[in-house]
Amino acid sequence: MATAVLPRFGTDERAALAGEAVRMITSLRRHGATAGGGVTRLVYSPEWQAAMAELEAWFRSGGLEVRVDAVGTRLGRLQGRQAGVVLTGSHVDSVVTGGAYDGILGVVMAGCAVRWLAANAGRPALSLEVFANCEEESSRFACNFWGARALTGRIGPAEPEKLLDASGTTIADAMRLCGLDPGAIAEAKRDDLVAYLEPHIEQGPVLARSDDVIAVVDRIVGVRVVTVTLEGVAGHAGTMPMAARHDALLAASEVALGAEEIARRLGAPAVATVGSLEVQPGGFNQVPGRTRLTIDFRHTEESTLDAIDEELRTLVRRVAEGRGVQARIDTRLGQPGIRFDEGICKRLENACDEAGLEWRRMPSHAGHDAQLIGTVCPAAMLFVPSQGGHSHRPDELTLPEHIGGGIEVMVRTLFALAYQGNGAR
Amino acid sequence: MATAVLPRFGTDERAALAGEAVRMITSLRRHGATAGGGVTRLVYSPEWQAAMAELEAWFRSGGLEVRVDAVGTRLGRLQGRQAGVVLTGSHVDSVVTGGAYDGILGVVMAGCAVRWLAANAGRPALSLEVFANCEEESSRFACNFWGARALTGRIGPAEPEKLLDASGTTIADAMRLCGLDPGAIAEAKRDDLVAYLEPHIEQGPVLARSDDVIAVVDRIVGVRVVTVTLEGVAGHAGTMPMAARHDALLAASEVALGAEEIARRLGAPAVATVGSLEVQPGGFNQVPGRTRLTIDFRHTEESTLDAIDEELRTLVRRVAEGRGVQARIDTRLGQPGIRFDEGICKRLENACDEAGLEWRRMPSHAGHDAQLIGTVCPAAMLFVPSQGGHSHRPDELTLPEHIGGGIEVMVRTLFALAYQGNGAR
Repeated sequence: MATAVLPRFGTDERAALAGEAVRMITSLRRHGATAGGGVTRLVYSPEWQAAMAELEAWFRSGGLEVRVDAVGTRLGRLQGRQAGVVLTGSHVDSVVTGGAYDGILGVVMAGCAVRWLAANAGRPALSLEVFANCEEESSRFACNFWGARALTGRIGPAEPEKLLDASGTTIADAMRLCGLDPGAIAEAKRDDLVAYLEPHIEQGPVLARSDDVIAVVDRIVGVRVVTVTLEGVAGHAGTMPMAARHDALLAASEVALGAEEIARRLGAPAVATVGSLEVQPGGFNQVPGRTRLTIDFRHTEESTLDAIDEELRTLVRRVAEGRGVQARIDTRLGQPGIRFDEGICKRLENACDEAGLEWRRMPSHAGHDAQLIGTVCPAAMLFVPSQGGHSHRPDELTLPEHIGGGIEVMVRTLFALAYQGNGAR
Repeated sequence: MATAVLPRFGTDERAALAGEAVRMITSLRRHGATAGGGVTRLVYSPEWQAAMAELEAWFRSGGLEVRVDAVGTRLGRLQGRQAGVVLTGSHVDSVVTGGAYDGILGVVMAGCAVRWLAANAGRPALSLEVFANCEEESSRFACNFWGARALTGRIGPAEPEKLLDASGTTIADAMRLCGLDPGAIAEAKRDDLVAYLEPHIEQGPVLARSDDVIAVVDRIVGVRVVTVTLEGVAGHAGTMPMAARHDALLAASEVALGAEEIARRLGAPAVATVGSLEVQPGGFNQVPGRTRLTIDFRHTEESTLDAIDEELRTLVRRVAEGRGVQARIDTRLGQPGIRFDEGICKRLENACDEAGLEWRRMPSHAGHDAQLIGTVCPAAMLFVPSQGGHSHRPDELTLPEHIGGGIEVMVRTLFALAYQGNGAR
């Protein structure tokens, strides 16, 4: 087979695709819009359904065949001449009061690239599929990469009826409300993937503080999340003397500050975050009897994660003993890090050079679908800059010129993977 | 006028009224029942309406005339021969996940006493009214003694449309849903009160740890509540380096521990409590950008409350500067303490002696309706024991024998006030 040649792709193409991506982001951010430009689009919610419907229509209008997998992920396919699929995209759900770019910009960038290839480069050797993943953030259910786990066959049979959201709805019922059958989840498993390429916003300050437009992401740090439950003694804020208290909120405060101290002492890349803290009963005139908090901690080395985990357990025990409260620690998430495929990383770097874009290699400090999908096929990621380094908040922004540059790198890399080569090899 | 003589009141009467009170508490705790025997009965809720309806029927069945005032307080009246009213009772609303005794036991004890007097002692000189107060806890709205403020003419004209509950409902709309007219609140003001006597559970450990059955409460400590809002910078829990964070939850943790330190350093009777803490955005993988917490602090001396207030403001400023977050402190409640009427306290002590019950004098460390009503007429309180000193939690309990003793003291004191004397004088 003769090596395929990429059709002309210049500054006009880049500008046109950036415009198309911005138009899509502007339209998609309406679904789950919150005050101040934010987005709350939780999996299987009406807002999520509306965004998925809009993406389906957009895939179809670009000549892609649309399929919905068993967990509701949408796939827009450009059929190739031979077996095997190059998958590309990211997730559609958001965190609570997040921004309009996290996840969904990756779907839009992948969609722009594959739609352009469909219109200009003809039929690929390997099929290309745009991946509009149902769920990644665990914002509604503690479901831990739901979409990517379905795709890699890692959802346990009992999970759908067990996972509850804050209102007590099971994820199985939430699926049924979207017309999905939780009994069919195993059918989402793929064995035809040849490569996976995930574009995403950086969600941090590295690119924004440099002149680089693209980060070639060659690994992802490991993430662990524990839930700490502290059971003290509730009581009246006036009549319970200070010396007689077993205040669960004060215990939680000591744990939060202690977790910060551990991460600061270890230094970068260690981070530890208490992101959620619930207080019961919660009245201003009630001594808190029960608190539940999460501790999210991350590091590139598994051995350091083990050490942090151990230190946190010691901290919680010490605080609980000091205040006479009962403590429980449950592991909510334990996601090992990953090293990505060197071949795809190199292709991304070549594509950046061809596009005349400054780039750097870096690890991701955030978890991504690619760390699961990368265990079943060669994978890599590229980052585009987050203005100000901001993410998971309403003012997330990636500039149109950076989106355009990223899409060009996507077009060139996907062309190399699906038209010229045999996937990542 | 000849001095009236109390009809025979002995151990049989005490036991019968204790049984009636327990029957009423058992029935009333169904309205707003939560798991584990708790009660959540917020003002103007359906549960509150059901409890009020049951109390109305009970008052009527005891021969009392029922009136509903402009804010929904129920009054069960035994008409006297001359002008002037001896008021007695407490509040019907509860804290969130509180117990079955706080407030409403006082209504039931007052109701038992006045129903017995109506049946056995004939018409009093001064009218007796049982006070089933609509609201005292500020658990749904930050409305700060709503019922007692209405009765003493202290609700501002703009308040009803301004006060919001957590779901954004105004207290005016909540009143309308109960058939009450928020425009008529001024009509609830009373100018006919001659005395107020409030029975209540102690909500603390003093009686339970002693052999005393009754506390004659001669003053109430002052209470202040401030709301602290901390505005930091939200972000991604992975990509935001520790050194670059302005974490609003860590700032809140320092404030909570600092408030505890201030109260412990001052020593009893100073207390300080962070009872509520909200975290935004609140996802486990989001650095907290905003927190809001309440600090409730109490002391018998106004000058010490001023000093604590000043220390807390210094603490918040120091924490905010240290973490680069914005801080705001709003005063949510500033309730001065009160010294109760010595004449009513003496009558309570006489009644305890006549009933053969051990008693002690003590201050209340909790706020009560009596501290407002006591500014417009002579007032005092009596406490009955809280088992284990527990309150504002589901396992609140006062033993039937203590309830019976308290009712006998109520009968004897109300008889002295309404049949024998001219109110408290």
